[in-house]
Amino acid sequence: MAINLRPSWMDEDLETYTDTVVRFVETELQPGDEAARKRGDVGREIWRRAGQLGLLCTDIPEEYGGAGGDFRHEAIMFDQMSRRALSGMATSVHSIVAHYLLNHGTPAQKARYLPRMASGELVGAIAMTEPGAGSDLQGVRTRAVRHGDHYVLNGAKTFISNGLLAGLVLVVARTEETPGARGISILIVETAECAGYRVGRLLDKLGMKAQDTAELFFDDVRVPTENLLGGEVGRGFAQLMSDLPYERTLIGVGSAAAIEGAYAATLDYVRERKAFGQPLAELQNTRFKLAGIATTAKVARAFVDRCVEDMVAGRLDTATASMLKLWASEQQGQVVDECLQLFGGYGYMNEYLIARLYADARVQRIYGGASEIMREVIARAL
Amino acid sequence: MAINLRPSWMDEDLETYTDTVVRFVETELQPGDEAARKRGDVGREIWRRAGQLGLLCTDIPEEYGGAGGDFRHEAIMFDQMSRRALSGMATSVHSIVAHYLLNHGTPAQKARYLPRMASGELVGAIAMTEPGAGSDLQGVRTRAVRHGDHYVLNGAKTFISNGLLAGLVLVVARTEETPGARGISILIVETAECAGYRVGRLLDKLGMKAQDTAELFFDDVRVPTENLLGGEVGRGFAQLMSDLPYERTLIGVGSAAAIEGAYAATLDYVRERKAFGQPLAELQNTRFKLAGIATTAKVARAFVDRCVEDMVAGRLDTATASMLKLWASEQQGQVVDECLQLFGGYGYMNEYLIARLYADARVQRIYGGASEIMREVIARAL
Amino acid sequence: MAINLRPSWMDEDLETYTDTVVRFVETELQPGDEAARKRGDVGREIWRRAGQLGLLCTDIPEEYGGAGGDFRHEAIMFDQMSRRALSGMATSVHSIVAHYLLNHGTPAQKARYLPRMASGELVGAIAMTEPGAGSDLQGVRTRAVRHGDHYVLNGAKTFISNGLLAGLVLVVARTEETPGARGISILIVETAECAGYRVGRLLDKLGMKAQDTAELFFDDVRVPTENLLGGEVGRGFAQLMSDLPYERTLIGVGSAAAIEGAYAATLDYVRERKAFGQPLAELQNTRFKLAGIATTAKVARAFVDRCVEDMVAGRLDTATASMLKLWASEQQGQVVDECLQLFGGYGYMNEYLIARLYADARVQRIYGGASEIMREVIARAL
Amino acid sequence: MAINLRPSWMDEDLETYTDTVVRFVETELQPGDEAARKRGDVGREIWRRAGQLGLLCTDIPEEYGGAGGDFRHEAIMFDQMSRRALSGMATSVHSIVAHYLLNHGTPAQKARYLPRMASGELVGAIAMTEPGAGSDLQGVRTRAVRHGDHYVLNGAKTFISNGLLAGLVLVVARTEETPGARGISILIVETAECAGYRVGRLLDKLGMKAQDTAELFFDDVRVPTENLLGGEVGRGFAQLMSDLPYERTLIGVGSAAAIEGAYAATLDYVRERKAFGQPLAELQNTRFKLAGIATTAKVARAFVDRCVEDMVAGRLDTATASMLKLWASEQQGQVVDECLQLFGGYGYMNEYLIARLYADARVQRIYGGASEIMREVIARAL
Repeated sequence: MAINLRPSWMDEDLETYTDTVVRFVETELQPGDEAARKRGDVGREIWRRAGQLGLLCTDIPEEYGGAGGDFRHEAIMFDQMSRRALSGMATSVHSIVAHYLLNHGTPAQKARYLPRMASGELVGAIAMTEPGAGSDLQGVRTRAVRHGDHYVLNGAKTFISNGLLAGLVLVVARTEETPGARGISILIVETAECAGYRVGRLLDKLGMKAQDTAELFFDDVRVPTENLLGGEVGRGFAQLMSDLPYERTLIGVGSAAAIEGAYAATLDYVRERKAFGQPLAELQNTRFKLAGIATTAKVARAFVDRCVEDMVAGRLDTATASMLKLWASEQQGQVVDECLQLFGGYGYMNEYLIARLYADARVQRIYGGASEIMREVIARAL
Repeated sequence: MAINLRPSWMDEDLETYTDTVVRFVETELQPGDEAARKRGDVGREIWRRAGQLGLLCTDIPEEYGGAGGDFRHEAIMFDQMSRRALSGMATSVHSIVAHYLLNHGTPAQKARYLPRMASGELVGAIAMTEPGAGSDLQGVRTRAVRHGDHYVLNGAKTFISNGLLAGLVLVVARTEETPGARGISILIVETAECAGYRVGRLLDKLGMKAQDTAELFFDDVRVPTENLLGGEVGRGFAQLMSDLPYERTLIGVGSAAAIEGAYAATLDYVRERKAFGQPLAELQNTRFKLAGIATTAKVARAFVDRCVEDMVAGRLDTATASMLKLWASEQQGQVVDECLQLFGGYGYMNEYLIARLYADARVQRIYGGASEIMREVIARAL
Repeated sequence: MAINLRPSWMDEDLETYTDTVVRFVETELQPGDEAARKRGDVGREIWRRAGQLGLLCTDIPEEYGGAGGDFRHEAIMFDQMSRRALSGMATSVHSIVAHYLLNHGTPAQKARYLPRMASGELVGAIAMTEPGAGSDLQGVRTRAVRHGDHYVLNGAKTFISNGLLAGLVLVVARTEETPGARGISILIVETAECAGYRVGRLLDKLGMKAQDTAELFFDDVRVPTENLLGGEVGRGFAQLMSDLPYERTLIGVGSAAAIEGAYAATLDYVRERKAFGQPLAELQNTRFKLAGIATTAKVARAFVDRCVEDMVAGRLDTATASMLKLWASEQQGQVVDECLQLFGGYGYMNEYLIARLYADARVQRIYGGASEIMREVIARAL
Repeated sequence: MAINLRPSWMDEDLETYTDTVVRFVETELQPGDEAARKRGDVGREIWRRAGQLGLLCTDIPEEYGGAGGDFRHEAIMFDQMSRRALSGMATSVHSIVAHYLLNHGTPAQKARYLPRMASGELVGAIAMTEPGAGSDLQGVRTRAVRHGDHYVLNGAKTFISNGLLAGLVLVVARTEETPGARGISILIVETAECAGYRVGRLLDKLGMKAQDTAELFFDDVRVPTENLLGGEVGRGFAQLMSDLPYERTLIGVGSAAAIEGAYAATLDYVRERKAFGQPLAELQNTRFKLAGIATTAKVARAFVDRCVEDMVAGRLDTATASMLKLWASEQQGQVVDECLQLFGGYGYMNEYLIARLYADARVQRIYGGASEIMREVIARAL
């Protein structure tokens, strides 16, 4: 497409990295997507392959097995998958888990887990939401009771991305009887051969078909006290809050990428397809719609770029990241809807990228903090 | 819900009929929906059952096996399925096929097919759209060449609702070499033991999972000349045009019903679910959204009611029916989107009605003439 | 225009009445509009003229000097002015005042005031809102203290339609020290030679330029106790509530009329104006916009018609009237905005009807209960 | 307000300059605004005062009397006026006129006019649009016929910003009989003591009340051939095109500033005003609306900033500038509408900034190329 959507922060090294990512995505991830969508998960092998290629934990320091890059590397990977509706690998969640460990973990925790996450041996997940409880941390009912050198964990979690494949789950639990935020801690659970840990059914979602979103059950699961994130009890709420801008910005990056992916696919389609003897692309309605979509893509690029730059510079505040998440996911919703419409009946068929982008888009306004939560967060900052 | 959404045209008899429909839908259709959605079709048995109960061809005269009712009976059936996202039985298409036969068929055609359609023995389909050709009738490439007392039919059709189960397909084909609308005719194809007729794969759609939408292939299919709809060649275009208000109004009825179904489900949900210690229904944002949704439901009801009344009275013009289809399907899209959002993560799960209503809704702006076609039709009338 | 926007409730008698109204509006009201807009009021003479012609208090019984018609007569008058952006005569307010008297007044009050309102001798106004207080009745600070056979009234009111010309003002005041709704009463103030009564400056509004919206000041105004509306103290809140559907429906009627007026003016314009060698009306963008606008006009007509019919039949509830007010005023805002855009630079010039319709439209979502209040009222009914 | 809306390109020098601008705007321009709005023009004196302070032609080289700054200086001045709805001085037009001279003028033309424009002695205007002709250059009917050393100019122009006060008007005229773009030239007309030149009435606009928008008439006006812009005939079209990004970006800057002005005013208002016993700012609806508005302000800031930086660097293309103009003016329209609503009745009163911002905003989607033209320009670039 003729309009320039190159990120302002892109440089030669990052372009080389982008090439690597695109090669992986197009030749290794995409070919398995149809099967993964049927099955509901991408399998652990592709995660290890991504690890081998250095595509995981790219912004984790090299001493912990990471690539020593920065947020831009994470953004590139998430972007290239999002624009192709390849939602199977929730690298966003994986990376956030790694960041919780990096920013809050004890030295032993970092040494023990980060290298295995970077290699793809351990897929990361975070278990926060509980059945019937929404995103309200106050209502956490999962309970960890201390017995000597371990906690006994009981409860259920739902909507867990990477839930089936996860080898490492950060579990948000109530560790003390104190009510409210004070009583929340995060426990690191290794799922392999973990007695009492059970993955429930894969959730049958509207979209994001290749992603293993699951319920998790903890039935008297024994977690060593050394697996308390950061080693100090009652720090869970603060730990969770600290990396919110990271997650929200990544979702914003995904939205902007999906907008660009939808735009490109639609532009191709309307040039090829004819209606009433002329290409769709020559009808004024099509042209005006595309002009609007291209404009949204351009504005989104400018806003995402600024947020990414601020994130790399360490100056992105939570309110701005929330604005990005709110705004970009809403634009994504509108753009994929308008694009799909231009495909007519084909837009409703899952074999077309636009149909998959449409179904995937709907959750962007919900997960990682729904739009209503974003508005609350922003309003508080005013 | 407290707001009154009873159709203005509802009377005691129709309420009794509605009870029958609701019983069928809730006790016979709904229980099989999950399996039907997996399989991609509802099976022929449920059609026969509907026929037994007198729920098919309700507005076809009794002399042809119909129920001798009017458009309101059709509206009630389509409404009760649409509000529950039960999209498996495309009775809309079935009824339109019956109307083509009733309005344009020869006495022999009516006598031969209508009773079997009313009983559910023959499911009806209409094969118009061709791969890569959109809704442009000018571009029909399926060809029927006359050989003595039969036509030889060759071509391919796509996006055919009831495509797998159909026992009777109205095939739009080019019967003469004349270009344009003049050369279009409609052939009645009985699919049972029909050599050269083949149903392609079921299309993998974004929604409407229980509906058997398929590709159809015609490979030297022999059709007796007596199966030319109406008996006169080159009448296809006019025949197709004449029943457009019927189809569009029915789609509008479905949109209004889906809006009401989404509204009712959401109202229930927000009253039960709590967030931050109070029911969602008490947050001002929820209240204001629901007020807007209820308003849309009420406006849609008024507009649909007037169109239904005009349809029954035989005075509904094509432009107004197109306005209904355009407007109601757009409102449906917005309402289901807003409702889904209030469900948070649960709204993205297919087990929730709202997720199915959301996925189903997207095709309403596309099939039966896309919104862009509606705008063209309306603009021409101004 | 080719689409049929005739109200469903229109009959031959009402068409004859419509002719009378149109004649008055076009030959007597419209010619003075430019001067009235400059001055900020239409003058009392035109009110008397409307009275002479039987166009005021049309739904007040003949025994009180009214025309003995019903809500449809009121709707026709308000419609014909609204579609021409002739906002100078707030007959809506005048009629509501008459209805307060009719429904709540003592026999003596009805006999004394209604005939003079019907003749146009007395223009009616209602003084509710106070400076800095919004539409919150709880906050009324205007005070009426009883001294023997009269009340002494003190306070200030703002945003009073017909404020300059009013001969009769219904003043909402606090008559007892009881807090909240219980202490509110309505006093009838005759403004002629009324000591202590003062009309402040005419408010400089965005639109509705010909309407005399003013501040009113009451400085020890003596009001005979017999001028307490209904004769019973503390009934003000209930009295105000009872006629809300009337006011809201009338505003809805005005919105639908303005939509039709904007549509008709725009259709004329785009047919005449050329751009790039062809009439604007032939560009696809123009055609699609007009199709959408015509559709909105049609839907609004259906909804307004149903509400008017229910109002005449005495079965229109407050929630539905609020839906009409909310929905129709929002549609009006969008339609006039889209229409104005099609006029290009001319749309920004006040000499064009569309510019005046645009400026007038903005207050429809505010007065008579802002959209936010409508949403509250509707939400409470769910 | 707590969210950071400081332009990314702002530095210490520019902040000092901003202080100067704000002082001028608040102490010299604002006090005269009410009178200017009544009269319809700001008078020539304030232009000279702005010139004295070095606020005009800030991005014109010092050798021509300019300030030797860049586009950011222009942006700051236009921003500070726009956010206060001070639309009387169309410095945007003045600056574009200066740029036409700078970029296309002969050395003599630059020397003769630029210093007088920088000092405010000559206010600049550009006369392009003709009555009934829209923004279609092909349709220019104003004609300049050469007679020896001068042209004789005849025609009429409309919608001319600075039309009354202009001392220098660039007139787009047809200089040859060649049809289409080839025959268009620009003539420099000095209006002082210019025989045959006449300013028509000031146009009565919806908003921008203090700006002298006028019709201009040319009746056998003699223009020396040395006043042909650039000295070469038939270059008008190319000259006009070359500075379109400049104008569009400036309009985009104005839109972003108006959004920020509306946001700030609204935030103040809702904190002070109470409804139902609590500040408006604490209602969830208000909070959510403000969150959305603040988000739009932030996104607009990011996009405008990038465009301004690209403009200063000389790499802003026409399509991107058109996207900015299209997008920002549409956002402005929505934001001022939402803000006004939060003011209730006060929002409709011209004494409130928000009412003036609302009325001013409507023309932003029309002048400088209407939104439809922007879409065309963007579509062509795809």
